[in-house]
Amino acid sequence: MRKLIEGFQNFRTSAFPDYARRFQWLAEVGQNPRAAVVACCDSRVDPQMIFSAGPGDLFIIRNVANLIPPYHPNSDYHGTSAAIEFAVRQLRVADIVVMGHTNCGGVKALLSQGELDGDFIGAWMSIAASLHGVGDQAEAERQVVRLTIANLMTFPWIRAAVDAGGLRLHGCLFDVAEADLLLLNQDTGEFKSVRQGVEVPL
Amino acid sequence: MRKLIEGFQNFRTSAFPDYARRFQWLAEVGQNPRAAVVACCDSRVDPQMIFSAGPGDLFIIRNVANLIPPYHPNSDYHGTSAAIEFAVRQLRVADIVVMGHTNCGGVKALLSQGELDGDFIGAWMSIAASLHGVGDQAEAERQVVRLTIANLMTFPWIRAAVDAGGLRLHGCLFDVAEADLLLLNQDTGEFKSVRQGVEVPL
Amino acid sequence: MRKLIEGFQNFRTSAFPDYARRFQWLAEVGQNPRAAVVACCDSRVDPQMIFSAGPGDLFIIRNVANLIPPYHPNSDYHGTSAAIEFAVRQLRVADIVVMGHTNCGGVKALLSQGELDGDFIGAWMSIAASLHGVGDQAEAERQVVRLTIANLMTFPWIRAAVDAGGLRLHGCLFDVAEADLLLLNQDTGEFKSVRQGVEVPL
Amino acid sequence: MRKLIEGFQNFRTSAFPDYARRFQWLAEVGQNPRAAVVACCDSRVDPQMIFSAGPGDLFIIRNVANLIPPYHPNSDYHGTSAAIEFAVRQLRVADIVVMGHTNCGGVKALLSQGELDGDFIGAWMSIAASLHGVGDQAEAERQVVRLTIANLMTFPWIRAAVDAGGLRLHGCLFDVAEADLLLLNQDTGEFKSVRQGVEVPL
Repeated sequence: MRKLIEGFQNFRTSAFPDYARRFQWLAEVGQNPRAAVVACCDSRVDPQMIFSAGPGDLFIIRNVANLIPPYHPNSDYHGTSAAIEFAVRQLRVADIVVMGHTNCGGVKALLSQGELDGDFIGAWMSIAASLHGVGDQAEAERQVVRLTIANLMTFPWIRAAVDAGGLRLHGCLFDVAEADLLLLNQDTGEFKSVRQGVEVPL
Repeated sequence: MRKLIEGFQNFRTSAFPDYARRFQWLAEVGQNPRAAVVACCDSRVDPQMIFSAGPGDLFIIRNVANLIPPYHPNSDYHGTSAAIEFAVRQLRVADIVVMGHTNCGGVKALLSQGELDGDFIGAWMSIAASLHGVGDQAEAERQVVRLTIANLMTFPWIRAAVDAGGLRLHGCLFDVAEADLLLLNQDTGEFKSVRQGVEVPL
Repeated sequence: MRKLIEGFQNFRTSAFPDYARRFQWLAEVGQNPRAAVVACCDSRVDPQMIFSAGPGDLFIIRNVANLIPPYHPNSDYHGTSAAIEFAVRQLRVADIVVMGHTNCGGVKALLSQGELDGDFIGAWMSIAASLHGVGDQAEAERQVVRLTIANLMTFPWIRAAVDAGGLRLHGCLFDVAEADLLLLNQDTGEFKSVRQGVEVPL
Repeated sequence: MRKLIEGFQNFRTSAFPDYARRFQWLAEVGQNPRAAVVACCDSRVDPQMIFSAGPGDLFIIRNVANLIPPYHPNSDYHGTSAAIEFAVRQLRVADIVVMGHTNCGGVKALLSQGELDGDFIGAWMSIAASLHGVGDQAEAERQVVRLTIANLMTFPWIRAAVDAGGLRLHGCLFDVAEADLLLLNQDTGEFKSVRQGVEVPL
């Protein structure tokens, strides 16, 4: 914790001065982010850093393996579904970006099975139970992104917003070793590095 | 999305060169973060920025209002509990930092009631149902941090690790307007700005 | 041995009660030390005592004169290199502390030559053969610490981890007569007592 | 490192005052420990703590899995054999205590195979290759202690000293979960807790 506090002191003297007014203004008028990002808790894949975003830009949901469960409301505590609901229905974000990543410990354990039993992890990763047959980790990590987008579309108010043109869903993959970003082409299902020049809807 | 891809290009030319080796190495050997942070999805409170952390440093869980449900394993999809389990039992983090923040939309709606029904948000925020009586938003935001720490202690493997001295829980609050960090003194329950010099256990 | 067993009985009634839970927990979940210490076998320089550390805190390698051979893998029994490999690649320690000490019998014999032939000691101390010309024992003891750090950097997975910012190497010297600790400044090569207030990276 | 330095400051104000004179005296006249201990680097099994020993009492060798290779002098760097030679021929210790421990990561990996390849660990653990057939970890940990004692007896100056009555070898096992000490009866090969009252030669 002491190191984190020193990190905070460092933030105050380095990045903060550029953002001082923005923080004040954001506190006064509230947040109004344009996009939500669904990413993994993994310490190597920070969305705000990877997208060079600043305070107020991105509503960020982070859980194990960037999964979204299928729509299934009940009285239980669904933190991820609640967060996506807050982003879509309260904040009215225009884009949801699902960002997977390579070397994902959750996906790796899912493929090797057994390791993920635990009290909660096994049940959580069972969202992606269909990946057991995939075998190849790189392909499984891509499949998780496609699956999360498909699950998002099971939420009726997401489907309605997408159909109405008020919300777009995007998939991408962060390659940790190369620090590269691969964008999902939802027509072909393929991922391609954005450094090779991909066409992107505005 | 195009703006995010431009942000990524900017990341490649600005922050990336300093971290190129670290990304490669982290991809090779896997992540080994020392601390987990439980924070809000709110676009104004990015833990990696606030703590000046880098790739590999922090395992970050972000949900609405930085809540942790009480320990209650079943076959349902508990994304937050799964993430905290991954941090504690797989990664063996030494510290968990719960970071609340001011101007929290989730807490605000909880206090004003009604707004948070939805399909999932109402159930999710009911974790903090005991705050209805608090009234004052600033006090409620502090109470959420204390509640999350209390709920963390209902997980048997967290309590065992804390009792054994192998894990420490910390609470803090990010003041958006001032971009200040207030640390929770768990003995007195009070929050105090770290800029006034607080004593912190290593 | 009877004296040692009495010492153990004494440990059971004095230090043990404070650590009972920690021992149980550490047995259950395994060790996860944050730092490795390379120290001398000398009976006067116990790292756990000097650093007020407890069970689970420090992975401790002790050999004659706190030496590390240069990287040279073959089929022979390299106990010290194996230990440092276990610390870095299995346990992923974040810090390696090389702790030399004053009045070191190994260094003394190296400087006076002849005494250290033996079956193994002569060959072992030849790691520090470059110190023959140093003459002054106090300076030679400091030089051993610098040499060990340099040899650690010949291990490719140590160099990679250091370059990536995931591992830090530190040098220090324990002054037996004063029970003082001197920290190596790796930029200047100088040792300075920590009681005079040195700047230390977290 | 900063935490270690704070630990040192703590040592100065807590344990040091009791030992100030002893450190001065030990620096002046040199060490003269009565026993050597061969223990594991594992962070949970600190011999000085377990035996309530103080500065100057124990010459401590720590490597992975408390192994001693069989006697085999050549020009290579044999750190462990050099340390045991220093203890026996220079310091003339009267006792050598081999202390194994439960939950040993080295032994566990040896039994499960594969995990210990690495550059050095595989070769080092091959000292105990005969344990592959043992299967049971608890029995393998006991067998390592017996093996190390047997290997010590392959050193001609150890055998000679033992035969002359000038040196005794002892085996014991530290149970991490219970913080218990089990003593090896070298006649029967059995280990028995010292808390049940064992007969010990002086």
